[in-house]
This record gives sequence, C-alpha cells and structure tokens, in this order.
Amino acid sequence: MTPVTVLGLGPMGRAIATALAAADHPTTVWNRTPGKGNDLDATIAGSAAEAISASPLVVVCVMNYEAVRAVLDADALKGRTLLNLTGGSPQQAREMAEWAAEHGIDYLDGVILNGVVGGPDAALLYSGPSEVYRAHQPTLAALGENGTYVGEDPGRSAGFNMSLLDLFWTSMFGVVHAFRLAAAENISPAEVTGYAKAMAGMLPELIDLVAEHVAADSFPGDASTLTSAAAILDDLLDTVRADNLDDGVLSAGRATVQRAIEAGYGQEGFSRLAVLWA
Amino acid sequence: MTPVTVLGLGPMGRAIATALAAADHPTTVWNRTPGKGNDLDATIAGSAAEAISASPLVVVCVMNYEAVRAVLDADALKGRTLLNLTGGSPQQAREMAEWAAEHGIDYLDGVILNGVVGGPDAALLYSGPSEVYRAHQPTLAALGENGTYVGEDPGRSAGFNMSLLDLFWTSMFGVVHAFRLAAAENISPAEVTGYAKAMAGMLPELIDLVAEHVAADSFPGDASTLTSAAAILDDLLDTVRADNLDDGVLSAGRATVQRAIEAGYGQEGFSRLAVLWA
Repeated sequence: MTPVTVLGLGPMGRAIATALAAADHPTTVWNRTPGKGNDLDATIAGSAAEAISASPLVVVCVMNYEAVRAVLDADALKGRTLLNLTGGSPQQAREMAEWAAEHGIDYLDGVILNGVVGGPDAALLYSGPSEVYRAHQPTLAALGENGTYVGEDPGRSAGFNMSLLDLFWTSMFGVVHAFRLAAAENISPAEVTGYAKAMAGMLPELIDLVAEHVAADSFPGDASTLTSAAAILDDLLDTVRADNLDDGVLSAGRATVQRAIEAGYGQEGFSRLAVLWA
Repeated sequence: MTPVTVLGLGPMGRAIATALAAADHPTTVWNRTPGKGNDLDATIAGSAAEAISASPLVVVCVMNYEAVRAVLDADALKGRTLLNLTGGSPQQAREMAEWAAEHGIDYLDGVILNGVVGGPDAALLYSGPSEVYRAHQPTLAALGENGTYVGEDPGRSAGFNMSLLDLFWTSMFGVVHAFRLAAAENISPAEVTGYAKAMAGMLPELIDLVAEHVAADSFPGDASTLTSAAAILDDLLDTVRADNLDDGVLSAGRATVQRAIEAGYGQEGFSRLAVLWA
C-alpha cells in the first residue's frame, strides 16, 4: 500500500487521514498547530518537510490557499505528487499547478463536494494530468469509491465546485430570506416549512429543464416567461419593501431579468438567463 | 350545488372553471377579451356585471390587481362573496378586502401555490373571515381537496405565497447563475446537472434545520459559521469576477453576511440570517 502524507488536521484533513489509515495506507500527518492527530492511526511528523518526505503522495487540505502556501515545502515535494483538496477558486488551483510544475512536483487538484470522505456517499472530483491521476487512482479510492476525474485543466474540479456552491449559497440566501419575510408577515417557521420543502423539492426537475434548454440552445416561455417572472418579482419586491426588509439579493436578480427583457428576451423562458447572464 | 362565477379565463381561470363545472357547480364565466370559454361546460356571460349576478360566489383570477379592479363591479357584487385568486402582495390583498368591506361584499383571498387546480395535488391557501370561509368550504373543495385556511388577516395567504416565491425565485437565480458560471469554466450542463440536483436535494433538510434554529432562537455554528460562509463566498465572488460575470446577487448576499459578522454573529450559523436579515 502506498504511503500517504496528510497536511492539515481540520475536520476534512482528519477525515482524509482516517480513511487512508482505514484502507491500510501507511499514513503520516502534520498540522501547523501541534497537538493534533494523537487519536489517529497515523505517524505524526515533526515538521512539514519531514511529513512530506515520508510519502510519494502528499495530500494538503487546509483552510485556504494562503495556508497551503505556508505549509508547502517545494524542496521536499520535488519528485512527489501533491493532491490539493483545499477549497478555492479555479484560478487559484491553476496558479498552484503552475507553481508545482516550476518546482518539479506532480499536481492534482480535487474537491470534496458534499463534505463526506470515504465510502459510497463521498463525492470527490479530481483534475490535472490524467497519467498522474491514473497512477494514484487506487490510493484515492480510499477517499471515496465514487471519485470522478474531470479533466486535464487543474482548475476544473474547482470550477465544478464553484458552480455548485453558487447554486447552494444563492438558494440558502433564498431560504433564510423566505423565513425572514414569513416572520414579517406573522407566519411562523412551523407554518411555512412544509410548503417551503415542497417548493424546494421542485428544483431538481427544474435543473433538468434548464439543462435541457441550454443544451438545445432554446428557451421556450410556454410555462413562464421572463416578463411574467418580472411581474411576480415586482410583487415580491413590493412586499419586501413594505415590510422594511433588505431587498438586495432580489433587486439584483430583478435587474438581471430587466436587462434580459430590454435585450428582447421578454417572451422567452427564465432559463435564457443561464446563457445570457453576464 | 352552489352556482359559481369565474372572472378571467387565463390558464388558471380556465382550470378553476373546469374544476367547478366538473364538480357539478353551475358555472358562469366571463373574460375581458371575448371569444374565450366556448369549450368549457359553463355559461358565458355578456358582461362582468351579468356574470357576477349569476352566482353568490364570484372567483376572480386575472393577471394582476390592476386587472382585478378593472373587472370588478361593486354594485353587482354587493351581498355576494368575492374570492380573489389573483397573485399579488399581502398589502394588495388587504386593500382589496377593505374595498370589499366598504361595498358590502364578503371577501376571501387565496393563492394557488403550485399552479395545480383540482384533485389531491392542488395546494390552495385561503384567508379572510372564518365564517365566510366555512360557508363556502364545500364549494372550494372542488378547487383542491387540500385547501388550507390560514387566518382572518386577508393578506395572510399572499404572505405565505410571497415567502415561498422568495425561496423559489432566489433559488432559480442560483440555478441559472450556476449554469452560467459552469459554462464560463468550460463545464457543460450535462456534466454538472447530476451534482446540481444532488446539491438542491439537500435543501429540504436544511429548510427543516433553519426552521428548528428559528423556533429555538438558537443558531449554532457547529456545522458552518457565518465567517466560514463569508470565506467560501469570497472564493466564489473571485471566480465570478475572474470570469467577467455579473456578481450582483452574490455580492448582495455577501454584504448581508458581512453585516451579520460586524454585528458580532460571525461564529454563529448561517441560519442566524433568518431572523437578522433586515
């Protein structure tokens, strides 16, 4: 079994080290703040360089890219493979890949989509040179059976992640603002939650529909047009403003709909924004 | 069976008239633009006043409140019950209720939550005087078995609707922006759709969690804090801006998170915004 080093013992780093050790990979760990990892079935290294030297594959999963740069030792990493599972933008992943190439380090970038590491529920994406991915695929299986290689561009897995985080966090703004608006209208969470869950339950089908429209480059307005969406959003904005609530997110969305209408797409479906919104 | 009049024969008005006629209510219809309703099992009136005079219960479902005001005849409606299923704000519903009271008209307001009329899948909410609702409940059952009375305040059903539309449209902004961002990162709809549906599938559980936090007035940050949400949103905004895409919705949401952090809630969960966001 390939020895693996894990740099960073936050919740994700711990889960990674645990999954690797459980799959019988000799596992070495290091954390910038000492005193972590004593409960893991892993060797705790005295320094980042010592940890890196212990394994041909080094996984880094820390808070952000600033922490990645602080923890990595280019000399120690030379000739090894670095898998970066730290969250960040595609641009940051590409810059890190360039840095690695300059220092003779094989680089893979990856994302943990749902916060689960190991087993059938984990959803990890990897990008970078395909031969590097193939070489380490048996080891990476320990992090999740359903790992998916998404391409040579090292920024690609982060690109997937950012698109999904866009959907997730924008929706979560909708969730909390909906509860806030309900409260302003004297409607309790218990009263509205069932309906809200039913409403959210419609999204997967609508995601399929938007994807179909984008793939066909055709955005029919038969169910609902941008003009009718604008009318509903205006009623909604009137309500939000009458209740003296912040309307920033909805106003910004409404402005996008307005630009689409002014560009002549008023009778097309809302899905037109999936290609138009820039 | 109580005779019912339906004013407005758009898609919803047609569905309402069809459901009432199917339940053997003598149904009279009227539409401002003539030539509609010939295919319905209903009497087509020559004027709005004539249509109103035919039934003790009059349902109006038109484009907006401007169209409601254009179609209603106060003299003809006096002594009858008006059920307004036209979409609008709670404030508009309350104003309409006041207008009705001034003219001796019993008023109910309602919303069709999911666009379905009739049968077990319809979800309609009603608000207004409970005795008026009770008197017409047997007739309203024709519009959907699962009608729910949500209170005396005539604006309350519209309040539910606006909260749910807030969730729905904000989420849909997330859906189309996520596809747009994916495209900018050379990721096709087919590649990202499965992950996006899985991400959206997490929302019902998170809606329950936010509702629990609001009900308990406690917003634990154990899974994710506002500060960590801010860091993720900053990576996302970097990505959106690097791809030269509009960041209006996400920037407005990020600003709300910032205000919460500056108010001292950085270590609390994102759900804090469900009560704080104003």
